[in-house]
Amino acid sequence: MSDLVSRAAAQAMDAADPLAVFVTEFALPEGVVYLNGNSLGPAPKAALTRLAQAAQEEWADGLITSWNKAGWFALPYRLGDRVARLIGAGPGEVVLTDGTSLNLFRVVSAALALRRDRRVIVMEGSNFPTNNYIVQGLIESLGQGHQIRFAEKDTLEDAIDDDVAAVVLTQAHYKTAHVLDMAAITAKAYAHGALAIWDLCHSAGAIPVDLKGCHADFAVGCTYKYLNGGPGGPAYLFVASRHQGAAAQPLTGWWGHGAPFAFDRDFRPAEGIGRMLTGTQPILSMVATEAGLDMIERAGTGAIRAKSLALGKLFQDLMAARLPDAGFALASPADPADRGGHVAYDHPSGYPIMKALIARGVIGDFRAPATLRFGFAPLHLRFVDVWDAVDRLAQIIETELWRDPAYAAVDAVT
Amino acid sequence: MSDLVSRAAAQAMDAADPLAVFVTEFALPEGVVYLNGNSLGPAPKAALTRLAQAAQEEWADGLITSWNKAGWFALPYRLGDRVARLIGAGPGEVVLTDGTSLNLFRVVSAALALRRDRRVIVMEGSNFPTNNYIVQGLIESLGQGHQIRFAEKDTLEDAIDDDVAAVVLTQAHYKTAHVLDMAAITAKAYAHGALAIWDLCHSAGAIPVDLKGCHADFAVGCTYKYLNGGPGGPAYLFVASRHQGAAAQPLTGWWGHGAPFAFDRDFRPAEGIGRMLTGTQPILSMVATEAGLDMIERAGTGAIRAKSLALGKLFQDLMAARLPDAGFALASPADPADRGGHVAYDHPSGYPIMKALIARGVIGDFRAPATLRFGFAPLHLRFVDVWDAVDRLAQIIETELWRDPAYAAVDAVT
Repeated sequence: MSDLVSRAAAQAMDAADPLAVFVTEFALPEGVVYLNGNSLGPAPKAALTRLAQAAQEEWADGLITSWNKAGWFALPYRLGDRVARLIGAGPGEVVLTDGTSLNLFRVVSAALALRRDRRVIVMEGSNFPTNNYIVQGLIESLGQGHQIRFAEKDTLEDAIDDDVAAVVLTQAHYKTAHVLDMAAITAKAYAHGALAIWDLCHSAGAIPVDLKGCHADFAVGCTYKYLNGGPGGPAYLFVASRHQGAAAQPLTGWWGHGAPFAFDRDFRPAEGIGRMLTGTQPILSMVATEAGLDMIERAGTGAIRAKSLALGKLFQDLMAARLPDAGFALASPADPADRGGHVAYDHPSGYPIMKALIARGVIGDFRAPATLRFGFAPLHLRFVDVWDAVDRLAQIIETELWRDPAYAAVDAVT
Repeated sequence: MSDLVSRAAAQAMDAADPLAVFVTEFALPEGVVYLNGNSLGPAPKAALTRLAQAAQEEWADGLITSWNKAGWFALPYRLGDRVARLIGAGPGEVVLTDGTSLNLFRVVSAALALRRDRRVIVMEGSNFPTNNYIVQGLIESLGQGHQIRFAEKDTLEDAIDDDVAAVVLTQAHYKTAHVLDMAAITAKAYAHGALAIWDLCHSAGAIPVDLKGCHADFAVGCTYKYLNGGPGGPAYLFVASRHQGAAAQPLTGWWGHGAPFAFDRDFRPAEGIGRMLTGTQPILSMVATEAGLDMIERAGTGAIRAKSLALGKLFQDLMAARLPDAGFALASPADPADRGGHVAYDHPSGYPIMKALIARGVIGDFRAPATLRFGFAPLHLRFVDVWDAVDRLAQIIETELWRDPAYAAVDAVT
């Protein structure tokens, strides 16, 4: 195509990029184009430094005194308040703790207890299924006849009626990246007396999120994707302040007690968001999350979204120009405004193509049966990286490198 | 006293100590005597090295490919098998995951589901209360009329009858260190058709534990005390292989699914111990645990117990000789064979005394209202450390240093 963006033009886009400075703050391996920040964010150099400092100065040197002196016990609250600023929540409405699935168990438990007369939970069946599994485990445990009403993107709002206790939805789809209308769905839920629970795993740090503006009730999310908090870094949960007095959840450990160091025999919940906590947190993983939160806050989610869309547009334009007839079908919404931070394509040979691409240093991922995901987390990516990614993909397709049997072998984790 | 052990005699005991070599494997600050390994184990040098390696090579360099290449997804199983060898469990009976309280929720849930016709849970009310809180939260959530029957050390066995679904007990008491007779209590439970669930937080790595020999059903425990796994390091849980086919728990996330990467809409539990898992684990905290497990395994729990008892005996002898009338009353069992890895004393001014002692570089801890705890985790301690600890304590008592108002101020975490 005559209007193909050249590598030099991509470099010019980098030169004009106000977020370019952040690229140098990541410890990325030389020569790798990392398009998987939507799954595991790369390591901020400051996170590596902070982790080493915490291990040496707080664990090895400070020992038990670090619970006070290094503020370990306060970490869920202090880091929760930092996350809150990224998702439109207020101070004291978010804690960092445990994993996303466990946090979903907590907030759905709390929501069902607030709507004891209702038995229906609305979910998007095709989205990342751990949320389905958690709700299935919870309602089986409760044994009160709750049911999940599965719907999809275009039928979700119609699925909300006066029988619904809660909608439990992931804002950006893990596979296609389509974004649900949080404001409209939450308003529909509210109109029917249902509570709105949002999973922000694929949206926080990628697109602006405004929980309070949408009047959301509860939310959960992870730190290890767009927030660059490290592999399996502790997740967060949000409880709107208006619910905190009545919210109860069954994972009632000593960190959620009103006076944890009184060692009273019987449980009494903490005031406020603290009642959502259970037990001792993985401190080393927890401290590693702060550098990433700091970067997102400095960059601003508006600027992040703008660059992410520009990177995605360049990728889509180059794909259309260089690989128009190679069998790639866009699986994400046609309008970039309707998708989150990644772009998905279906291809019948997606698995070996992605493996071949990773072997050439361009790291995306694959979701069965046919979806290649390319993440455009903009803090660590340059426009020229996107250009190089499509260039290497085009070479793999043109040379049919992906047909090498080595790329057909299935890994344990895909 | 004429038979007072001299500092030189303590040094001679170190010279003859077969475990002395392990002391050099810890990154302990110069001049500190750390008697709190029963609360937070000190840092193995190898753990700091491993953590830095995982952060740089696996997260920063390996990125998403580390789920396969660095074996992240297998960590709960691989490290679980290592813990299993320390507690008398078999391969595939233990996983490392989340926190102790959450794991207790899982195994008590599973036990109650295996004993659907029973409603009583026996617990030791005075022990670390997060276990009470977890069971209280669970049975309130279930709403089936379960009740906790609280008993104490000497009345526990009598509390077990045919109404009991499960006994949920901590083997070594968090405060006094008294050790329950796991074999006898488990046998009594079995005779009455009840299941035995053991919390090993204060015993694993301190005293020999033989879960299979006792025919225990379930167990949980943390890695951050005697296992030296790092602050808040992931906990473990044990499900006897005979229960794994039927054991179900409500925290059903994708890591517990039979085919987690099929992304099926509905939950189907994994075969075996994997069904106890929920979601993505804090990898950095998790990898930090292995060095400690390795040390315990090399030293052997029998040798660890022998040295721990010898250290405790030296401490008790020196306390009796140098501070016979200072108001310290032994709160641990008189027979060392009946206690775990720490020794507790009550003192009416315990709080300021412990704070003054910590300020002089001897770190123990305090549990309200009056208990000072001194841990004798033997891998990082020398006999001369014990001698120095009592020496400094005697100086604090003799000079009344602890009456300084600075030591009366209460910290957030005690």
